[in-house]
Amino acid sequence: MAVYTEVGDEDMVRFAAEYDIGEILSCKGIAEGIENSNFALTTSTGNYILTLYEKRVDPADLPFFLGLMDHLADAGIPSPRPVHGHDGAALRTLCDRPAAIVTFLSGMWPRRITPDHASELGRALAEMHLAGSDFSIKRANGLTLEHWRPLLGRSEDRADEVAPGLAKELLGELDALEQGWPSSGPGGLPVGVIHADLFPDNVFFQGAHLVGLIDFYFACNDMFAYDLGVCLNAWCFEPDRSFNITKARRMLTAYRKVRDLSDAEMAALPLLARGAAMRFLLTRLYDWLYTPGDALVTRKDPLEYLAKVRFHRGISSPAEYGLS
Amino acid sequence: MAVYTEVGDEDMVRFAAEYDIGEILSCKGIAEGIENSNFALTTSTGNYILTLYEKRVDPADLPFFLGLMDHLADAGIPSPRPVHGHDGAALRTLCDRPAAIVTFLSGMWPRRITPDHASELGRALAEMHLAGSDFSIKRANGLTLEHWRPLLGRSEDRADEVAPGLAKELLGELDALEQGWPSSGPGGLPVGVIHADLFPDNVFFQGAHLVGLIDFYFACNDMFAYDLGVCLNAWCFEPDRSFNITKARRMLTAYRKVRDLSDAEMAALPLLARGAAMRFLLTRLYDWLYTPGDALVTRKDPLEYLAKVRFHRGISSPAEYGLS
Repeated sequence: MAVYTEVGDEDMVRFAAEYDIGEILSCKGIAEGIENSNFALTTSTGNYILTLYEKRVDPADLPFFLGLMDHLADAGIPSPRPVHGHDGAALRTLCDRPAAIVTFLSGMWPRRITPDHASELGRALAEMHLAGSDFSIKRANGLTLEHWRPLLGRSEDRADEVAPGLAKELLGELDALEQGWPSSGPGGLPVGVIHADLFPDNVFFQGAHLVGLIDFYFACNDMFAYDLGVCLNAWCFEPDRSFNITKARRMLTAYRKVRDLSDAEMAALPLLARGAAMRFLLTRLYDWLYTPGDALVTRKDPLEYLAKVRFHRGISSPAEYGLS
Repeated sequence: MAVYTEVGDEDMVRFAAEYDIGEILSCKGIAEGIENSNFALTTSTGNYILTLYEKRVDPADLPFFLGLMDHLADAGIPSPRPVHGHDGAALRTLCDRPAAIVTFLSGMWPRRITPDHASELGRALAEMHLAGSDFSIKRANGLTLEHWRPLLGRSEDRADEVAPGLAKELLGELDALEQGWPSSGPGGLPVGVIHADLFPDNVFFQGAHLVGLIDFYFACNDMFAYDLGVCLNAWCFEPDRSFNITKARRMLTAYRKVRDLSDAEMAALPLLARGAAMRFLLTRLYDWLYTPGDALVTRKDPLEYLAKVRFHRGISSPAEYGLS
C-alpha cells in the first residue's frame, strides 16, 4: 500500500482546472500499488485515477507508458485512458512530480483464480499483444536477461540468509538461462509490446468477465512468449506452490485462439517461464534483503519464486504446460 | 494510512448482496484513517465508504456510532448516512469484523485553514450539538479527565525521552486540571453529544463551504464546551505553533450564533481547551513511544500539543480567545 506524496486540496483544485473533467468532489489516496502514489478522484463528471510518479519510475519512460495506454484504449483494449489537459498533454506536473489522470476502470481483481479467469487472461493478453503491434514508441525491457546477473550481484552476499545455498543455485540458473535464452526479432522469436507484470492484481474482472488491464509501468518491447511466461507464473500456481495445468492449458489455448504460437515459441516457453520466475525472484530477493522494516510496501516472499524456477527447470516439453 | 484487512472480490460481492446498493463495480482501500480499514466502494448506484472496524474500536460502541450517524443525517447535518441491509441492520459482518457501509460525502479536507473555514466549522459544530440533543443512546467519553492519569502512567517512565522534564510537567498539569475541572450536567456545564475529534481531516469543504463532517468514532456525551476546546486546538494554531485569535474569534462567534455559550461555559473554556490539548498530548505521547517503527500509521509529534497545553495555561480570560 502506498501514498508517498500528499496532495492538498488547493493543489488538487488548481491541477484539475488544467483538464476538462469538471469540479473536484473528492480525492482519496489508494492503499495499493508499490511504485507510485495513486488517488481515487471523484469529479462532477465521474471517477478517475490520479497517479503521481515517484522515484522508481524514470520520467523519460512516461511518454511510452501514457502513449501506450492511449494506443491500447483506442484499439479497444479495456485499459485506462489518459485524460489530456486543455493543451493536449496527458503528462503533467503536480506537487513537483510527473502526474497523470486516467479514466477509472470498474472491476475487482480476483483473489481466487479459476480456470475461467486464466482463459480470459490468455485471450486478453493476446489481444493486447496484437493491439500493440503498431505502437510507434519503443522501450527496452529493463529487467530481462542481461540485467539479472548485476541484480543478483547486489544480493549475492546475503542471499543465503534467505535460504542456504541460494546464491550458488541462482548463479547456476543464470548460467543456464544465458546459455539457452532464445534469440528474438527477425529470425528469432516474435517481439512486440508486452505488459511484463500482468499479475492478478493488475487485471479486473466483473463476475467471470475480464473488464480491465491496468498498470502498464513495466510494459516494454520484448518477446511475446516471455509475457506468457510471466503469466504462467502469476496465474497458474496454487497457494501451495503446485502447478495447475488446467489453468495453464486454458490460458494458452485462449491465447492461441487470438494469436497462435509458433513451434519455436512453444519450444522456448519452459526457458522463458523459468527466466520470468528468475526475474521476480531476483527483485523480490533484493527487496526482501534491503527494504527497510518501516517501508510502506509489503515485502513478497522470494522463495515462492524459487519454487517456480525449479518447477520450470524440470519441464522437458511444452506439453507439460498443457500445450498440444 | 491504513488498510488492516484485505477484502477479497468474492467476499465483497457476497457482502454487497445483503444491501440494495446495486452491483459492485470497484472496491479500493483508502490510505487514510488510523483506527479502521476504509474502502472506497463504487457500485452501479454510486459511491460509498465501506468500513471494517478493527481492534481499537469496541464493538459495543458501534450501535451508538451508527445510530448517531443516522440521527445526525436525519437532522440535516452533512454527515455520512449508514446504509441498512435488506434486514434493516446497518451493522454487519465482513471478513470476521464488524462492518458498515455509509454514503459517500463529497469534499476535501482543508490543508491550509482560513478564518472562513474556522467560521464554517464553528457553525457546523453548534448545529451538530443541537442536532444530537434528542439522540437517545449514551456513550461516556473514554478519553477524558479521569483517564488521563492512567494514560500518563503508561508513558511516564519514558516521557523524558521526548523532552527533558516532560513527566514532571505533565503530572503538574494533571493536578491543575483535576483541581479546576468544571462540573457538568444539571447545575454544571451543559452536556450533549460531542464529536471529540473534529480535526480538519474530518471536515470536508467544497470551496468555502463546509459540506461534510466525518469520523464519529470518538463521539460521546460530554460538555459541549470541551468540544470547542478540541476545535480551538485543532483549527486555531498556525504551523509555527502560534495562536491565531482571528480564527478563534470567527469560530466562536459563528458557534454562538447557532448555540450561545453561558457565562460559565466561557469562563471554563481556557481550562477545557487546556484539557483537550492534554488529551491529544497523552495519546500522541503513548503512540510516539510505543508504536512499532513498521506500523502503518504515521506518528504525530506530541510536543506540538505540549506547546498548546502551555498556551492555554497562560490564558487568564476567555477574551484572549476572541470571546467578547
